[in-house]
Amino acid sequence: MSYLAGTIIDLIDELSKLPGIGRKSAQRLAFHIVNSDLDTVNRLANSIIKAKRDTKYCSICCNFTNSDPCNICSNVKRDRDLICVVADSKDLMAIERTKEYNGLYHVLHGNISPMDGIGPEEIRIKELLDRIQKNPDTSEVIVATSATIEGEATAMYISKLLKPLGVKVTRLASGIPVGGDLEYADEITLSKAIEGRIEL
Amino acid sequence: MSYLAGTIIDLIDELSKLPGIGRKSAQRLAFHIVNSDLDTVNRLANSIIKAKRDTKYCSICCNFTNSDPCNICSNVKRDRDLICVVADSKDLMAIERTKEYNGLYHVLHGNISPMDGIGPEEIRIKELLDRIQKNPDTSEVIVATSATIEGEATAMYISKLLKPLGVKVTRLASGIPVGGDLEYADEITLSKAIEGRIEL
Repeated sequence: MSYLAGTIIDLIDELSKLPGIGRKSAQRLAFHIVNSDLDTVNRLANSIIKAKRDTKYCSICCNFTNSDPCNICSNVKRDRDLICVVADSKDLMAIERTKEYNGLYHVLHGNISPMDGIGPEEIRIKELLDRIQKNPDTSEVIVATSATIEGEATAMYISKLLKPLGVKVTRLASGIPVGGDLEYADEITLSKAIEGRIEL
Repeated sequence: MSYLAGTIIDLIDELSKLPGIGRKSAQRLAFHIVNSDLDTVNRLANSIIKAKRDTKYCSICCNFTNSDPCNICSNVKRDRDLICVVADSKDLMAIERTKEYNGLYHVLHGNISPMDGIGPEEIRIKELLDRIQKNPDTSEVIVATSATIEGEATAMYISKLLKPLGVKVTRLASGIPVGGDLEYADEITLSKAIEGRIEL
């Protein structure tokens, strides 16, 4: 590829290492970047460097934060006896958007997935255990990992670990999505919905 | 969004300004970057800065280059009497991949598109005219802009401009599907198009 500037080739190489960015997308992004004005490019590069340099893990909930403890863990208005366990920050953001939950969080940064070589030691389960042992007031741990095989396995593992400590462990309800047609629900979801039916 | 580190929010903002990157993709990329090791992140940021800083326009063909004149313009083995006019570097790369063409190029950096406010002055047409006037040996100019409305309009404009100079102007012919982008054409189709070029 000697017919293309080496600096652009390097940029394409780096961009195509990002998840979901193929060779063609990387090329398009690279040319866009070279054609952008200097300020825009510097802002992008600096935001990357700063995000990496100044983002830490909260020493309580393990979420990404700039100040330790994070805004949620240091918020005195939140219910400190309730911990919602999520696989990653995106899930935390999804729950925050509901404005329904006012407890604390614990971010695992992954699910247990033996197929991908991720065991319980690779995610922040130890930190969760330590945290609950240090705070015996914890009234409930809501395990809000996804309803996937990995998410369920992680939930089961955490549940088994925490039950001996006498803490109540709950799991998000599975069922028909609001606005969803019964006719289009898959069998497993429908089974779960029947199983978890609630009295009106 | 005070529940998310400000540095990550900034990064998501910057990433979502890139073409084809929506809010969700930007979020995924941002978390990936923060989770990557420092070396990887520095390499990415540096490649962005270097691509912007060290990439210049070739003074002959206007393509992006690190050395002036570029590798193609300074290659004595290439046919200097033949100029292939392309809208951008991605199109040049597509033609180079066919290994069918051994002349020089001229990169316009865009097509004439009145709808987007891009007139002949906004792209490198003047440079092409100057170049041909300075090199009366030019035997043929192949206008390889895309088979889109903008590409055709650009080709017509260039053809009208160059004909009075007595230079042969040709256009890529069969092979490229009408409405298709040159960048995505396969090598065989593109080879056919070069082979069957017609005089305007």
